[in-house]
Amino acid sequence: MLGGMNARERLVDATQELLWEQGYAATSPKDILHRAGAGQGSMYHHFAGKQELAVTALEASAAAMRSDVEALLDVKRPAMERLIAYLERQRDSLRGCRMGRMTYDADVLATPELLAPVSRTLGWLVDTIAEVIRQGIDAQEFPASVDAHQLASMVVATVQGGYVLARAQWNPAEFDAAVNGAVTLLRAWKNNGHSA
Amino acid sequence: MLGGMNARERLVDATQELLWEQGYAATSPKDILHRAGAGQGSMYHHFAGKQELAVTALEASAAAMRSDVEALLDVKRPAMERLIAYLERQRDSLRGCRMGRMTYDADVLATPELLAPVSRTLGWLVDTIAEVIRQGIDAQEFPASVDAHQLASMVVATVQGGYVLARAQWNPAEFDAAVNGAVTLLRAWKNNGHSA
Repeated sequence: MLGGMNARERLVDATQELLWEQGYAATSPKDILHRAGAGQGSMYHHFAGKQELAVTALEASAAAMRSDVEALLDVKRPAMERLIAYLERQRDSLRGCRMGRMTYDADVLATPELLAPVSRTLGWLVDTIAEVIRQGIDAQEFPASVDAHQLASMVVATVQGGYVLARAQWNPAEFDAAVNGAVTLLRAWKNNGHSA
Repeated sequence: MLGGMNARERLVDATQELLWEQGYAATSPKDILHRAGAGQGSMYHHFAGKQELAVTALEASAAAMRSDVEALLDVKRPAMERLIAYLERQRDSLRGCRMGRMTYDADVLATPELLAPVSRTLGWLVDTIAEVIRQGIDAQEFPASVDAHQLASMVVATVQGGYVLARAQWNPAEFDAAVNGAVTLLRAWKNNGHSA
């Protein structure tokens, strides 16, 4: 996977993987160099240090996450189908979310440069799903009374919390259970003409 | 807060706080001794080391969490009201969940003794909420077709994921939005006679 990349790309790629697997605080520069098959000189040639490299890696992961979500949501289908597609998307749920996990990393919380891509990406995700819900309101799929930000936050939280449940039991079925619970409520709400 | 406790209690209490604030991997024995106002001799007199102390602290936090949840759910009120009470319970949402956060701590995931209280407590939480839902089915509040484990997983995931969203923006309103979205769907489902 790292073959064919230059040293800078290998460093960023290795850091993306390590941040996802073990977080920022637990990842040492040595871990990164070992995973990237790069030398210390090459790391300090391209980056001021671990923090700058991690910011670059988080930005790259954020871009990948945005493009995955856009491919799923930016299609001409009813809003409800797109919400359910987002929830039911096949995930390697034991890995958790490469952005969400950072919110429990003490060093990330304490470092504005590291938290910024995480805040921005999760904020973007909620806003993007809220926009799908607003399109559903415009198309009279959903009642105008629904609070798009709240419903979008609940959809994203179900996924983020589903990861926590799956990781706690080390069982992807626990992620699926949470998502299926949300899909059941969404479908029932819609099928009942959402008169509430 | 630590006054009046003996050294063992101060060590456990300090470890509970530090695990909640910064996780296991980022907490050093030195941090614990400093917070507890205890000496190294006292720590090794009572515990084999950081891991054994952390297991004791996690068990104490788990017991506190169980008793909070039982006080909220083990009451004679309709099941829907109890689910909503669990969701809307006032929380210091920026702190996150003392159990859930551990699922993103690489050392905890890699150490069965540390993961066990986390798995057990989150599993207990989902089972306890599923039992409330089953009582709601028995009382004909909910349709017999509802999957209690799925719906309970979704309720717990909303709270766990709500913490992630609040911490990402460092804004408790993001937690409230997720919870309110879930409450809206639950109420609409119930008000519509849950015919789905």
